[in-house]
Amino acid sequence: MTTSPTTAFAPLRNDTFLRACLRQATDYTPLWMMRQAGRFLPEYRATRAKAGSFMGLATNVDYATEVTLQPLDRFPIDAAILFSDILTVPDAMGLGLSFALGEGPKFATAVRDEATVAKLEVPDMVKLQYVFDAVTSIRKALNGRVPLIGFSGSPWTLACYMVEGAGSDDYRLVKTMMYSRPDLMHRILEINADAVALYLNTQIEAGAQAVMVFDSWGGVLADGAFQEFSLAYTRRVLAKLHKTWDGATIPSIVFTKGGGLWLDEMESLDCNALGLDWTVNLTKARALVGGSKALQGNLDPNVLFAPPEKIEAEVIKVLNAFGTPHSGSGLGPTHIFNLGHGISQHTPPEHVAALVEAVHKHSRLMRGAC
Amino acid sequence: MTTSPTTAFAPLRNDTFLRACLRQATDYTPLWMMRQAGRFLPEYRATRAKAGSFMGLATNVDYATEVTLQPLDRFPIDAAILFSDILTVPDAMGLGLSFALGEGPKFATAVRDEATVAKLEVPDMVKLQYVFDAVTSIRKALNGRVPLIGFSGSPWTLACYMVEGAGSDDYRLVKTMMYSRPDLMHRILEINADAVALYLNTQIEAGAQAVMVFDSWGGVLADGAFQEFSLAYTRRVLAKLHKTWDGATIPSIVFTKGGGLWLDEMESLDCNALGLDWTVNLTKARALVGGSKALQGNLDPNVLFAPPEKIEAEVIKVLNAFGTPHSGSGLGPTHIFNLGHGISQHTPPEHVAALVEAVHKHSRLMRGAC
Repeated sequence: MTTSPTTAFAPLRNDTFLRACLRQATDYTPLWMMRQAGRFLPEYRATRAKAGSFMGLATNVDYATEVTLQPLDRFPIDAAILFSDILTVPDAMGLGLSFALGEGPKFATAVRDEATVAKLEVPDMVKLQYVFDAVTSIRKALNGRVPLIGFSGSPWTLACYMVEGAGSDDYRLVKTMMYSRPDLMHRILEINADAVALYLNTQIEAGAQAVMVFDSWGGVLADGAFQEFSLAYTRRVLAKLHKTWDGATIPSIVFTKGGGLWLDEMESLDCNALGLDWTVNLTKARALVGGSKALQGNLDPNVLFAPPEKIEAEVIKVLNAFGTPHSGSGLGPTHIFNLGHGISQHTPPEHVAALVEAVHKHSRLMRGAC
Repeated sequence: MTTSPTTAFAPLRNDTFLRACLRQATDYTPLWMMRQAGRFLPEYRATRAKAGSFMGLATNVDYATEVTLQPLDRFPIDAAILFSDILTVPDAMGLGLSFALGEGPKFATAVRDEATVAKLEVPDMVKLQYVFDAVTSIRKALNGRVPLIGFSGSPWTLACYMVEGAGSDDYRLVKTMMYSRPDLMHRILEINADAVALYLNTQIEAGAQAVMVFDSWGGVLADGAFQEFSLAYTRRVLAKLHKTWDGATIPSIVFTKGGGLWLDEMESLDCNALGLDWTVNLTKARALVGGSKALQGNLDPNVLFAPPEKIEAEVIKVLNAFGTPHSGSGLGPTHIFNLGHGISQHTPPEHVAALVEAVHKHSRLMRGAC
């Protein structure tokens, strides 16, 4: 499918993020932000205007590369993440993704009956070649500055959009199918899981150095339904992922928004790190799963609307809640700083600068390395 | 303020709900549904059409009484809940509540700056006389069939609407104030807490036999912020509530949507029952707090879109997750069946009949009393 062997890429100069994912000691706590290549940056808005539409931006390799690197040119963050959308996979299944201006994603075809479910299949990855080309292009453009994260929506999260046909505030249609016709829902999820695994593996082959599964809507499920309809299929994805590629270990991260209650059950996932939203107490999470998983999170993105000195105080709270990561050789508890959800489009960029500085400064101080 | 002494009311014929709130044994698991007097019932829609608007309905004693009793005339449910809105208190503060057709609530004045905060005060309860009159009227109309629950939004939940001016999907404005000017937010919350306590006490004096605090937006807060800005003020409300009135114990229930992660901290609240949404595992919740609190919940309202036999199966799952409540004399773990959130307006009424029948039947069976 894709071509460039990773040996063609420049050696990595900042491996702090990858080390933290793998529970290896680092000099400071690495940081990146969900949706860091996004509307809060004026330069992003300028590129998006040139591209004409969101999908115009995501499907153009040069534009996708440009916006992925924009936040790195402003802030010394420790990872880049592919600019794309979580819904590219169902789009490649032929459901017809579009983004109306100022609105969320929408599918031309919603998957709501037996006949439509029966027709679903794992899409030919050729239809997603624009994503893999972007991965390779971004990796080359990064030139070893920081690692590149690839990603996908989780099988359940993709199913939410596929059945609802758009965003939802009550998940009535997808849950009606789940409770009424679990057989149909399981078939959708099986196909999604296999498609997501293939999609992520192809991103890895194209140059992604870590992968993340966004289970953005796992948290809307009832206890019991989460385990059956979301967690089981995330597990199926993870079981199929490349663990190493071209000699490098490829860490995987799973983020279930609103999934804090199920952290004990997520510990058994075959991934390296778990993403946490801001409702989770990092001290408790470390005690629960820090013995086997790196933890990523979890500042409330709304903190970034406060003045810089308040941002610094909240950063210190999050760092202290996790506590000092392990040091020395071997493996132990590690923390990757992130927001608990995507950064808001209304965020002042200079507040992000204050965030990044605070995380790097105080995480060095707490290690006694400054 | 209000007049009717409760001794003027008919004796209660079904005290199952009140007993379960107080952790006393019952023959079956009592049931009521959040938003049970609502749009899923055609007779509600007819009354609402006559009233002209939501507030026209809520402020008219006869209409409010009529719609409160409608679900009881259809289903053998075990409690009635005052028909009103959680935002009556800020409306009485002079913020100007309105409901546009098909939209959520909106305030004419949003509370966003120091000057507006400074002007806030606990409203004169005379402005809420229509609520207390409705309570007394409903209690009389119930004529002892089942107990009447009064309610209010929590201080934090009211503050969300007061600052945002309407519903929100990111809580940016209220959280910006909270993180930037915690002093202003604490002042709003103090006033709200005192207003809510007075409001609930006046409902109790008017005839409410139990009260519930809806912390509908507590779950959007970060760990740490929840304890400081929501839980502390719910505690302040509870400390001021009448524990008994006219010789009867008045149980109180606190429901924090999305608050499952903080259940251990909510155990110390001076209330009788905790409401739980569907993400919470009832077995774990009972083990954690069942030694001191009754538990209320937690079926996903979307289950009601499945066919009756699936509804029955999901009801059994919820009942079994809690397990058999204690029996005999004294106090012990008890369960009040409810949805994990308000019933959807799209719910078929005959599915609610299946739900009620399943809860009553299987909860008797599990006690070996059938």
